[in-house]
Amino acid sequence: MACTSIQFLRRIMKHRSQSHLQPWNLFNKFRNRVLLGAFLLLVVSMEVTESRFLVKSLPGLPGDLPFTLETGYIGVGKSNEVQLFYYFFESEGNPKADPLMIWLTGGPGCSALSGLLYEIGPFMIDYANSTLEKPMLQINPHSWTKVANIIFLDQPAGSGFSYAKTPEAYITNDTLSTMQVYHFLRKWLLEHPKFLNNPLYFGSDSYGGIVVPMIVQEIYNGNEVGEGLHINIKGYVLGNPSTDASVDYNSKIPFAHRMGFLSDAIYKSTKENCHGEYLNVHPNNSLCKHYLQVVEKCLERIRKAHILEPFCDTLNTLKSDLFSRGLRSLDKTSMDIWSLSQLQIQGCREDNYLYSYTWANRKDVREALNIHEEYEEIEWVRCNETLRSPNDHKKVLSYTHTVPSTVAYHRHLADRNCRALVYSGDHDMVVPYLGTLKWIESLNLLVVDDWRPWFVDEQVAGYTVKYSNHNYNLTFTTIKGGGHTAPEYKPKECFSMLKRWLANEDL
Amino acid sequence: MACTSIQFLRRIMKHRSQSHLQPWNLFNKFRNRVLLGAFLLLVVSMEVTESRFLVKSLPGLPGDLPFTLETGYIGVGKSNEVQLFYYFFESEGNPKADPLMIWLTGGPGCSALSGLLYEIGPFMIDYANSTLEKPMLQINPHSWTKVANIIFLDQPAGSGFSYAKTPEAYITNDTLSTMQVYHFLRKWLLEHPKFLNNPLYFGSDSYGGIVVPMIVQEIYNGNEVGEGLHINIKGYVLGNPSTDASVDYNSKIPFAHRMGFLSDAIYKSTKENCHGEYLNVHPNNSLCKHYLQVVEKCLERIRKAHILEPFCDTLNTLKSDLFSRGLRSLDKTSMDIWSLSQLQIQGCREDNYLYSYTWANRKDVREALNIHEEYEEIEWVRCNETLRSPNDHKKVLSYTHTVPSTVAYHRHLADRNCRALVYSGDHDMVVPYLGTLKWIESLNLLVVDDWRPWFVDEQVAGYTVKYSNHNYNLTFTTIKGGGHTAPEYKPKECFSMLKRWLANEDL
Repeated sequence: MACTSIQFLRRIMKHRSQSHLQPWNLFNKFRNRVLLGAFLLLVVSMEVTESRFLVKSLPGLPGDLPFTLETGYIGVGKSNEVQLFYYFFESEGNPKADPLMIWLTGGPGCSALSGLLYEIGPFMIDYANSTLEKPMLQINPHSWTKVANIIFLDQPAGSGFSYAKTPEAYITNDTLSTMQVYHFLRKWLLEHPKFLNNPLYFGSDSYGGIVVPMIVQEIYNGNEVGEGLHINIKGYVLGNPSTDASVDYNSKIPFAHRMGFLSDAIYKSTKENCHGEYLNVHPNNSLCKHYLQVVEKCLERIRKAHILEPFCDTLNTLKSDLFSRGLRSLDKTSMDIWSLSQLQIQGCREDNYLYSYTWANRKDVREALNIHEEYEEIEWVRCNETLRSPNDHKKVLSYTHTVPSTVAYHRHLADRNCRALVYSGDHDMVVPYLGTLKWIESLNLLVVDDWRPWFVDEQVAGYTVKYSNHNYNLTFTTIKGGGHTAPEYKPKECFSMLKRWLANEDL
Repeated sequence: MACTSIQFLRRIMKHRSQSHLQPWNLFNKFRNRVLLGAFLLLVVSMEVTESRFLVKSLPGLPGDLPFTLETGYIGVGKSNEVQLFYYFFESEGNPKADPLMIWLTGGPGCSALSGLLYEIGPFMIDYANSTLEKPMLQINPHSWTKVANIIFLDQPAGSGFSYAKTPEAYITNDTLSTMQVYHFLRKWLLEHPKFLNNPLYFGSDSYGGIVVPMIVQEIYNGNEVGEGLHINIKGYVLGNPSTDASVDYNSKIPFAHRMGFLSDAIYKSTKENCHGEYLNVHPNNSLCKHYLQVVEKCLERIRKAHILEPFCDTLNTLKSDLFSRGLRSLDKTSMDIWSLSQLQIQGCREDNYLYSYTWANRKDVREALNIHEEYEEIEWVRCNETLRSPNDHKKVLSYTHTVPSTVAYHRHLADRNCRALVYSGDHDMVVPYLGTLKWIESLNLLVVDDWRPWFVDEQVAGYTVKYSNHNYNLTFTTIKGGGHTAPEYKPKECFSMLKRWLANEDL
């Protein structure tokens, strides 16, 4: 989906490239917290009430919604120049008692709708009855909203329907976006005081592994210094989380070896010549470079997000062409419809994502979600590549990766009264479970429930191990046969995992 | 399917248990070969012509067969007391030039029809249009018979439709069954002289890894000593082959570790305490035994034949009950039909095999295949467990495992003018590819084409490495995502593999 969003963002970001990356200083000054807290309270009372909108029905889903959905924008920043869009689903179980969860989709730059529609939300594409022109929806029987109130948040600005009022306000980084989410949460809770006492969890997968531990720590810190609003934070849930750039990256080659893609000989030579370091290779180490090329040859046509699924060249000419013209024009010209019906669905998982583009860019959908008229310039893309691609220096990037590792955050949280659930689809090569296990083990926690299988419908759903440190505990589990975004591949198993974990049961 | 065949075999083998295991001596006396050859020639001219039968149509497949199928019995042994049944498909390509392949299904004791129907034959179950009462067939677009003439052979006696005329003649072992197949082949070729010049390959998977290398070596030996009939043997094809009881078994635990079912800690402790030997554990090694129990706990509900597919308790009460009454009675009583329609198909791969029971035990199918009236007592079972279960000493066994390793046979063949293709579904834990690679590497062959991916439809179909020694070459490949009987899981990929290999092309 790269070109789609790149071309779009290039368009809207033309003038942005003139300005330098200057993170908004206020958000970096942690010592100003108390002052900021007071300021935010003022802001809340002034304007946020008008942003809440109760969604009664959605195009593609017949009848009234069988769950409670609220959408809205909450402004953060000095002048609320960063407008963060959210979808809030009340729990279909017991909204008063069930936990509140804030779910961030990774990227950075992926929209909340992606996690909602393809992973854990209460509605999903009804492929059997959909056309690309008119996607239909169906109820997800394994929605996490059955056991939790969930806020799906588009963040940072430039993701999903979130936007900034000034070009400069699009510019962000790990720390700044963390603070923005923190402030979003405080405002949201003030707007929704009835959820103030619900146990609160943050959740995410993939790049969420960077921002979520930072946000959770920020909340604990905030509670400790007493910023006026006590947040009932209980813990966090992370799936195949990016955690440590070096550990995660260096786990890919051992993982590929274990999965049978590299011979023992190739693996041994690569490991020995590169000294196990495949990310930062010394420029003079030509043997290492040679073996990395051999490895690359073995892996280049493996689908990284699920190694057994077909590798698909996601953007063929037609798709690229279609999306470069802008999907929002679908409502306006017949020529685009003609192109759309030419679009081949080839049986690649990535093709599924096309439905989200056409659905989210329809005028009636935007009206139903209450995306305001003034923001109609926002073309929805599933993942905004301009935000997240760190390696192409020709691109104007609005996101700077400032935190290469969040292991230290996990370590700090391990001294709090906190619960963590870390799960890994075991067929994912984007963030292999091997690396995740490695940094978890580096925390030197006590194993309180040793490695064992757990079951759903009497089938092995994965393997779990539980660690503890005083009032902290961390449950790690693989999702057997799962890919990078595990609930997308194993919805039933992941739902059972969450339900049991939230209920303090063993997996 | 254990109980089914056990109960049936128990019935027909009641008196067999009275006799001691006395391998038929003639087959063990290799020095009598020339004499035997002359005898066989006599036998052939006397009786085999009448056993050939051209099958024009098959119940479940509308119209005349779109391929040439001959079935028949060939007797081997002093008085032809072992009657081996075969299905012979002429190549749908160029029967005159295409190779001739003899395909044995493993077990020992699995029927040729299993490999034919579920792996590589030209027809397969049409699940969409089948009921258990009336299975329908469809054409297999990836049949190996598109590029080879294939004899599917029921062997040894007690497998599929093959039988023995005396209880004693059911008793066999690796060496004896090898010789029986060898003699079958000689007789068959004498009956079908037009295929004498076609390149000949033996093929099998699973337990075929024991008998095929033995048979192939027997053929080379026979050609060398000049037994009157020169057999145009060119090589062999083996899938996830049982080769060395120790190497194969000991590869299961490292494989389970690599696939994420055992933690590094459990694997390390098990390996260290058992010294890598998990099959023959010293009775006093209680630490090893302890860790093997931990390992067993992790793996007991993993489907060994494909680790990502559901683990199914194959014989629920209903199935057991149904099959214990004997499927052949289906033609006779309505009560059995009633039971059959009660039978749940639960979405387990093993359930697919039920269709083969009902199909092969129908009277019209047996008539179409020309299973003679006098043999109607034969109840067809997919795999005759009485033959192959070596560990239950309470059972009367008719098969003695006399050859625990065929590595030496591969080593001998590596000095002949011979080609070998060894493939391994990489998600199989019955005979993991790790063990297969281990014994291949112990042959100390020269690597002539190093480990690399190969492709079908631009997707990685597996990883291959080619070894050579003078006029011998061995191609090893994984079948990515494949299980124990790889063509059952990855038919297109396995067909491409065979086609390219037979044409002397690189994979």
